[in-house]
Amino acid sequence: MNGNKLSTFFYNNELLSGTIYLNENDSRHAIKSLRLKEGDNIQLINGIGVKANAIITAPNPKKTTCKIIDHSKSTPPLPLALAFSPTKNNDRNEWIIEKCTEIGVTEFFPVYSQHSERRKWNKERMHKIVIAAIKQSGNLWLPKINDPCNFNDLIQLSDQFKNKFIAHCRESNKQQLYNVIQQNESQLILIGPEGDFSIDEVALAVKSGFSEVALSQNILRTETAAILSISIMKGF
Amino acid sequence: MNGNKLSTFFYNNELLSGTIYLNENDSRHAIKSLRLKEGDNIQLINGIGVKANAIITAPNPKKTTCKIIDHSKSTPPLPLALAFSPTKNNDRNEWIIEKCTEIGVTEFFPVYSQHSERRKWNKERMHKIVIAAIKQSGNLWLPKINDPCNFNDLIQLSDQFKNKFIAHCRESNKQQLYNVIQQNESQLILIGPEGDFSIDEVALAVKSGFSEVALSQNILRTETAAILSISIMKGF
Repeated sequence: MNGNKLSTFFYNNELLSGTIYLNENDSRHAIKSLRLKEGDNIQLINGIGVKANAIITAPNPKKTTCKIIDHSKSTPPLPLALAFSPTKNNDRNEWIIEKCTEIGVTEFFPVYSQHSERRKWNKERMHKIVIAAIKQSGNLWLPKINDPCNFNDLIQLSDQFKNKFIAHCRESNKQQLYNVIQQNESQLILIGPEGDFSIDEVALAVKSGFSEVALSQNILRTETAAILSISIMKGF
Repeated sequence: MNGNKLSTFFYNNELLSGTIYLNENDSRHAIKSLRLKEGDNIQLINGIGVKANAIITAPNPKKTTCKIIDHSKSTPPLPLALAFSPTKNNDRNEWIIEKCTEIGVTEFFPVYSQHSERRKWNKERMHKIVIAAIKQSGNLWLPKINDPCNFNDLIQLSDQFKNKFIAHCRESNKQQLYNVIQQNESQLILIGPEGDFSIDEVALAVKSGFSEVALSQNILRTETAAILSISIMKGF
């Protein structure tokens, strides 16, 4: 269910008024791939709620100049954060970032937990993925990607969220996520690594106010659990 | 949120009683990777609702013999079908098959529509992916993957489903999918290609009883729309 053209939106992290310039990447895309000319209309987003209509005044594959015609500003979404242990296979981490951005996550917390199999995180690459995903999906709010932290640090950071959930596969008194979400308040979900959270980690989270939740009767991979839980918390 | 071991289940498309044999792939995995020995317990599924406990009686990396100890049979899920236009990038098609199988789709219909960018479909590869996905997720029912068909054929085939939805990006009187799903009846959703369905295709679907639905305010990629819609229709 895509639009007629991928990358319908251009991105510029400024205020979007007056004259603005497309960066080299977007300029090349506009002029070389889409073959846009002087006078053509484009849509821009700035990742902080503004969508603008603009007109190309000086097409240039390296630095295209545009004039903003009008813009609209949307109100910020409620915090909807995903904390997850990066999976061994990095493609799956990239999918988590891309898909959850499309769906509308506001913040990512990569977490190194006891059974994490991956301790590498390419910050620049992930930043590029969220930019591409907001341009493609028209999500007006660029999600924040935090630097990786340890499990204990995440527990400290989690206090800023009113509703905190931990999804794991251990036997316990779990509730179905869709029965306990609070769409009109800030939410955080914590998804475990391939080897699941340790007993100590689950206990610490519960002590710190996390509710234990299940997503499905089936055993979901980390990336499926991440996408599903963000979709549920978003109220879909 | 994975189990402690990926590929927890072994697969054998038989009745699962008495003595059974693991195929070469599963035998190698059991004996070489998991280093299972004579007397070790394993769990098997047959893709048609049966889960069994078995004991390894003759470990062999090419053909391992097991004895079924007990089994349980689940009732078939209600039909929950996904029809979609394969995307240009085949990785994304494989993700659709893998993820929707984990979540619990019962049938796939690859559809070549007017704006389809891909007309190739590797049947054997997709079959391997659904097998791997049920083994990993513990989904007891192997989804059926139909051979690709044309849009008009899909419309004919759709009559077997009580609730039929078409998700597209065109302007029209669409409802939110989560407001119109009927979890206790058979359901089919049709997701368009990157260039969306044509006006004629949408009109034909509507005439044939499909309801037009939207999934999100954002523009979703085909694979994100597929995963999200199956999750919504499943009642998550």
